[in-house]
Amino acid sequence: MSSLNDNNLPPASGIVTLLTDFGHADGFVAAMKGVMLGIYRSAQIVDLTHDIAPQNIAAGEFLLSAHFKYFPRGTVHVAVIDPGVGTARKAIACYWQGHYFVAPDNGVLDFCARDESCLAVALTRREYWRQEISHTFHGRDIFAPVAAHLAAGVPLIKLGESTRLKPRASSQACRIAGDALRGQIVHIDRFGNLISNITKTAFADFVARQAFAIHFEEKLFTAITPSYGYARAGEALALFNSFDRLEIAVAQDSAQAFFSATPGTFIIIKRRS
Amino acid sequence: MSSLNDNNLPPASGIVTLLTDFGHADGFVAAMKGVMLGIYRSAQIVDLTHDIAPQNIAAGEFLLSAHFKYFPRGTVHVAVIDPGVGTARKAIACYWQGHYFVAPDNGVLDFCARDESCLAVALTRREYWRQEISHTFHGRDIFAPVAAHLAAGVPLIKLGESTRLKPRASSQACRIAGDALRGQIVHIDRFGNLISNITKTAFADFVARQAFAIHFEEKLFTAITPSYGYARAGEALALFNSFDRLEIAVAQDSAQAFFSATPGTFIIIKRRS
Amino acid sequence: MSSLNDNNLPPASGIVTLLTDFGHADGFVAAMKGVMLGIYRSAQIVDLTHDIAPQNIAAGEFLLSAHFKYFPRGTVHVAVIDPGVGTARKAIACYWQGHYFVAPDNGVLDFCARDESCLAVALTRREYWRQEISHTFHGRDIFAPVAAHLAAGVPLIKLGESTRLKPRASSQACRIAGDALRGQIVHIDRFGNLISNITKTAFADFVARQAFAIHFEEKLFTAITPSYGYARAGEALALFNSFDRLEIAVAQDSAQAFFSATPGTFIIIKRRS
Repeated sequence: MSSLNDNNLPPASGIVTLLTDFGHADGFVAAMKGVMLGIYRSAQIVDLTHDIAPQNIAAGEFLLSAHFKYFPRGTVHVAVIDPGVGTARKAIACYWQGHYFVAPDNGVLDFCARDESCLAVALTRREYWRQEISHTFHGRDIFAPVAAHLAAGVPLIKLGESTRLKPRASSQACRIAGDALRGQIVHIDRFGNLISNITKTAFADFVARQAFAIHFEEKLFTAITPSYGYARAGEALALFNSFDRLEIAVAQDSAQAFFSATPGTFIIIKRRS
Repeated sequence: MSSLNDNNLPPASGIVTLLTDFGHADGFVAAMKGVMLGIYRSAQIVDLTHDIAPQNIAAGEFLLSAHFKYFPRGTVHVAVIDPGVGTARKAIACYWQGHYFVAPDNGVLDFCARDESCLAVALTRREYWRQEISHTFHGRDIFAPVAAHLAAGVPLIKLGESTRLKPRASSQACRIAGDALRGQIVHIDRFGNLISNITKTAFADFVARQAFAIHFEEKLFTAITPSYGYARAGEALALFNSFDRLEIAVAQDSAQAFFSATPGTFIIIKRRS
Repeated sequence: MSSLNDNNLPPASGIVTLLTDFGHADGFVAAMKGVMLGIYRSAQIVDLTHDIAPQNIAAGEFLLSAHFKYFPRGTVHVAVIDPGVGTARKAIACYWQGHYFVAPDNGVLDFCARDESCLAVALTRREYWRQEISHTFHGRDIFAPVAAHLAAGVPLIKLGESTRLKPRASSQACRIAGDALRGQIVHIDRFGNLISNITKTAFADFVARQAFAIHFEEKLFTAITPSYGYARAGEALALFNSFDRLEIAVAQDSAQAFFSATPGTFIIIKRRS
């Protein structure tokens, strides 16, 4: 594990992304933006999503890990899904793979925490918070102001004491069990595409250029389709999506409706002889 | 009431917030932003919310009054819920508590209008509007350009004639009736939390450090819980939320579903001897 | 048709609008914004809408054609509704009426393509794309980076080879048939207003200042109402909306619910003697 004294962290990009389970109807996200702009007037603030199902930490972790890397190095990513707000759960910030992250310490940053190279601090320096701290909205009162200071150039180490993140959520990784690679659906997108936790790398390592069979519900796929447009309308297909996850889709239709699948549905890969 | 000749109003922050009942699907909000950026290219435009139920002026007033204060002084807040568009209803701008507001004169700014210190103008100076004015979309043709000019530094007084705002909506304030403080639910947020019109100050003044009982539907609360995390999952609680309103919640669940409550449901506070 | 050698195209405004069928829940739009900000840090990015029904190219074309003109000249409008992603469908950029457009060549830009003055290129210069191109998300990998380069000042002609756009979608224009002007509902907005493809100009040319009758479902309108506020609550009316389309509305209510109309419902104008 590197130390925060290695001070070669990249400068802030001035961009902040926000991921929450706050929705769009109640003004909570706007209040966070107001606080940030009061601290750093020229922040570029981008909504990653606010439609995480209330308190679904695993979904937030998945979407943040899938998309953060498309932003410039030095971007600050804020993730507020916070069922423990107001209790003793820690608030944290960390640096991982060129990016900064600010969140409650509840598993939403497990994709960073699983890697030894992650550098973290517990948010303890109140001079970077709002003056008045509510019991129920640390997104506005702690995470937003800390993110704004970080985006404006305050070094990570100044925000609090160095700490070691431990992954919290039960592992969402796929795994080999017997002669099969076993994964499951972890997210269903707007088009009804079923996104699994099987990465392109895990698949390639397991299959090792041999013939394979992908078992999903009553269906069996023996090939990966390059993209949706290669299948006939209404045809089910397996493909690697744009962030290199194995995905089950139905061309020009919803695989969710076709399969009646939900997050958690299993997907099994076997080698064929 | 102060006069607009007192010219110590704060400079514009360059930030504009937008609150409408336009939703996100029809492009109306984008057209407003296009008009504003044509006038003031470096405006920082923040969506407060566009999910107000169509023509629900009271909900818009509540959310704007709850969140505007988290933005820097000198921010311009635009509120377009406008069932009377195209008729003789006035268009107004005002200054209150360090912020600027632009809206139709229909009650959405009652929280400003109730206070004598509010400084208002009727929007009559057409040189700050779009050249062509439609009958049905003053958000784009009047309110957006006026807000952009204001955010770019045009003084309030230049936008039209000085006027006095009168509150329109039937009062949403809580009140003392007999031996009780009576309020009601005025907003239900995404998490199903039931937000009342009883402020922390009104509650404290009424209760005066004595024992109290909060009656809500079949439930009775005799304590205020500091935050959601202090209650067991599924347990109902009363707390002051992050904008100091008395709120009925159910830990890690929806109070709306638990109580089948709607906006308008009464909440009664009594002192206990 | 003008040629791209006429180099009097307006400079980029630095503003990019985004219209997609990606919704808000999956982070796809954020990934596009991340890519754009990595190329052009001070881009002003505005969401036009992301709530187009999946793969509904005609709806996207309608909303983009209705709203683009409210942005400053030189704005770049990106439209990604892309059922053919990953197949041989071309990616294009064009210039029309002071604005730039970037999209798959599938009909979403038909309103530009129908006009001879439209200047277009096929996007073939890979140095303006992301380095790695997925099969399924050209919005992020091709359209977003091309738009960012265009908004940052790269000339249109540099993005690929000059080409001629051909309209694809079956015409959405209204037409005269016998003694009637025949149109249909092409969009239903959040308020339930029914927006037709009959423009103010087509109506005026046909009616030629004579008495007229508008037939819609069981109703007959013999006048155009200036705006919603001129009708009694619950009354049906015909009006020209803020982008000059004939619209059927119900004052303070939903015409969609009142008429049980859908996109495609006919609307017929006749002259009265």
